[in-house]
Amino acid sequence: MAAPRGTAAEIEEGLSFAPKFDAAGLIACVVTAAGTGEVLMVAHMNAEALARTLESGEAWYYSRSRQALWKKGETSGHVQRVLEMRVDCDQDVLLIKVEQAGPGACHTGRRTCFYRAVVPGGPGAPAALEFRDAARGFDPARVYGRPPAD
Amino acid sequence: MAAPRGTAAEIEEGLSFAPKFDAAGLIACVVTAAGTGEVLMVAHMNAEALARTLESGEAWYYSRSRQALWKKGETSGHVQRVLEMRVDCDQDVLLIKVEQAGPGACHTGRRTCFYRAVVPGGPGAPAALEFRDAARGFDPARVYGRPPAD
Repeated sequence: MAAPRGTAAEIEEGLSFAPKFDAAGLIACVVTAAGTGEVLMVAHMNAEALARTLESGEAWYYSRSRQALWKKGETSGHVQRVLEMRVDCDQDVLLIKVEQAGPGACHTGRRTCFYRAVVPGGPGAPAALEFRDAARGFDPARVYGRPPAD
Repeated sequence: MAAPRGTAAEIEEGLSFAPKFDAAGLIACVVTAAGTGEVLMVAHMNAEALARTLESGEAWYYSRSRQALWKKGETSGHVQRVLEMRVDCDQDVLLIKVEQAGPGACHTGRRTCFYRAVVPGGPGAPAALEFRDAARGFDPARVYGRPPAD
């Protein structure tokens, strides 16, 4: 599915898709919402998840904690239809724009995984978190039972 | 600066900032543009880069290829003023909203690093890339000399 990696110029300016997987065989994927452009989540794909995503038009990932291929929404029904995939200059990060089924992408029940801001603590003091955009669209215990699968 | 990592509930629902650095001491950071929300780039921070970013309000990263702390814009002048930092549910990815100085974030001269789409190739055929949003805002050879620093 993917081309071999070439020179820096080929990687940055070429039209061959040559994704760079890390030592664990994974590539990070940033997921944004169609329409709003909001960043919903960041997950990882291995070569198989990437191939399935391209073939099916729905997002597949690889769970590092469960060490398993994982279709987003397989438990919750909150699948992600991929409208566009992009790759960055050095081809080691993917970006997908999705139509997110259901009320949210985050396993905690929220629209986005980025529901807390990091607030600097001032000189010598620790940073702290503040909830923002943190309303829950669903009850994860009801949707997933326990433990949450995605 | 950061709190020790606690239980899953503390990490996901707490107000302590406990970023999870990987085995190399790094955490991924997604960078979006204030105003448009466009994803500009993804880079990595180590603890020192994160501390400097929070203290200074300008983005610092850690370059894996050069193995060095790196202030975005130190060569190009294309600094990033951080308007907000967020962290995801399991606190292993950061998201910053920035005011990007200059015409673009990408070292290739473009506004975003994600200037190519990945187009599925159909059954058995490789995916290919297509340029999108790929106009250059600056000439990297003039801004950086060679090699590009950021």
